[in-house]
Amino acid sequence: MADKLILDGQVVSNDVKQKLKNRITKLADAGVTPCLATILVGDDPSSETYVRMKGNACEKLGIISKRIHLDKDTTTEQLLETIQSLNEDQAVHGILLQHPVPNQIDERKAFETIAIEKDVDGVTSIGYGQTAFGFGVYPSCTPAAIMQIIDYFDIDIEGKHAVVVGRSPILGKPVSALLLNRNATVTTCHSYTENLNQHLKQADIVVAAVGKPNFIKGSSLKEGAVVLDAGYNKGNIGDVEYESCYEKASAITPVPGGVGPVTISMLLKHTVDAAERTITI
Amino acid sequence: MADKLILDGQVVSNDVKQKLKNRITKLADAGVTPCLATILVGDDPSSETYVRMKGNACEKLGIISKRIHLDKDTTTEQLLETIQSLNEDQAVHGILLQHPVPNQIDERKAFETIAIEKDVDGVTSIGYGQTAFGFGVYPSCTPAAIMQIIDYFDIDIEGKHAVVVGRSPILGKPVSALLLNRNATVTTCHSYTENLNQHLKQADIVVAAVGKPNFIKGSSLKEGAVVLDAGYNKGNIGDVEYESCYEKASAITPVPGGVGPVTISMLLKHTVDAAERTITI
Repeated sequence: MADKLILDGQVVSNDVKQKLKNRITKLADAGVTPCLATILVGDDPSSETYVRMKGNACEKLGIISKRIHLDKDTTTEQLLETIQSLNEDQAVHGILLQHPVPNQIDERKAFETIAIEKDVDGVTSIGYGQTAFGFGVYPSCTPAAIMQIIDYFDIDIEGKHAVVVGRSPILGKPVSALLLNRNATVTTCHSYTENLNQHLKQADIVVAAVGKPNFIKGSSLKEGAVVLDAGYNKGNIGDVEYESCYEKASAITPVPGGVGPVTISMLLKHTVDAAERTITI
Repeated sequence: MADKLILDGQVVSNDVKQKLKNRITKLADAGVTPCLATILVGDDPSSETYVRMKGNACEKLGIISKRIHLDKDTTTEQLLETIQSLNEDQAVHGILLQHPVPNQIDERKAFETIAIEKDVDGVTSIGYGQTAFGFGVYPSCTPAAIMQIIDYFDIDIEGKHAVVVGRSPILGKPVSALLLNRNATVTTCHSYTENLNQHLKQADIVVAAVGKPNFIKGSSLKEGAVVLDAGYNKGNIGDVEYESCYEKASAITPVPGGVGPVTISMLLKHTVDAAERTITI
């Protein structure tokens, strides 16, 4: 169909990165190289892969990737000390703590310890509050990626009904807040929602952020809905059943190659933003 | 009708205050008198009335009301200095800056200057972020009052569809967050919402936080909806057209005597909470 739009995240990601190149060159002229510190605790293979992808993406663009790998038996206190030292390290512009951390660690406390000016991954409650109030600078990266895709493809959201499925602190909640601030009417659904299909059936925009493979089917959608799939389940499967949703949607992100690559680009962008702020203050 | 429930805020408010009395006595035994500092800038008559009501409610319960009245020509810097000195004053447990402030003042900056541990009115972005993430201690008072009413009258919200009309930082956004955290499915509507009536028609719970007198009519409601009116417009008129909504609702807050009195009680409760935290840390 001619009017069916595949929201190609690779195209958006390349556009974001292209624009960052000039900014990184200018920073170099000012003697600053942006630096993202990543903290990986333990040896979960997926987490290792994610952190490596992020680090490699940094380096390809000329951003320093400072990779810290802590033992799986790390205590909360040890992790907090690591974060504190990164907070104080002037050469570090952004800090990413890879989720999830081992069970013995108070993950929320660790996230909250990241200094707001280095919270480029958008995990702190203060960062979320500022985002929701419309003056946050680093919303978490997947929600930021979703907004970037919406803007790149010039999707009209003002006054439209967006249904977000999921309410996690780094995905469902902030994407709901960002859509609301852009004048969408936002319904946030979750595991306790009665009649999820009834909500989905009315959505002009669907954001799937639920973490269950192929959870949303085309039969639940309104004809012509815009479908943004923030899920990344094992085997590169999204939260959206692509084939059936493709039939109903007017625009849809694929998995892989949709929200994922843009998420990494937003992390890079936030790191460059943070580096710029250290010289323009 | 026998099954029609008037959600009498005065009853809830009295219950909250009654429970505070013991706690205030215990604090006195420990040598602590809770103290709420209120800051009024300029001489808007409604603001003066609100601040006076709050101060009087404090004093009636044995909470010190430290009333600061600044000139209408106060600058942002002067206001920030006042707030800073209250942040540092160990005898002050809570700080309330009466909204609105005169135009020359950066109100958001002033709110953000209030120390989180004294933000008993729930106006800071960090307080909002903590509330939305489920570990905030002082949600803003009107949303807290709405939840108090829901709990007092044992209204079931889990899985239910709540439609919040309004998205202000101290009302629509935090009440949406609180309802979401209690497992309601939440739709946040506002001035850009298309088909507001269609959303209202599906709501099990309606929160009116729009600031327009008699804005929500009974004809827009689903039979049996729970209606919570957070509006307080001139002449003691709510955002809800009471007579027509009363007919449709299974439960409804009146105006006056609904959310309003509970809001003040929540401010008192938060101030006592804050005083207790100074001795239990």
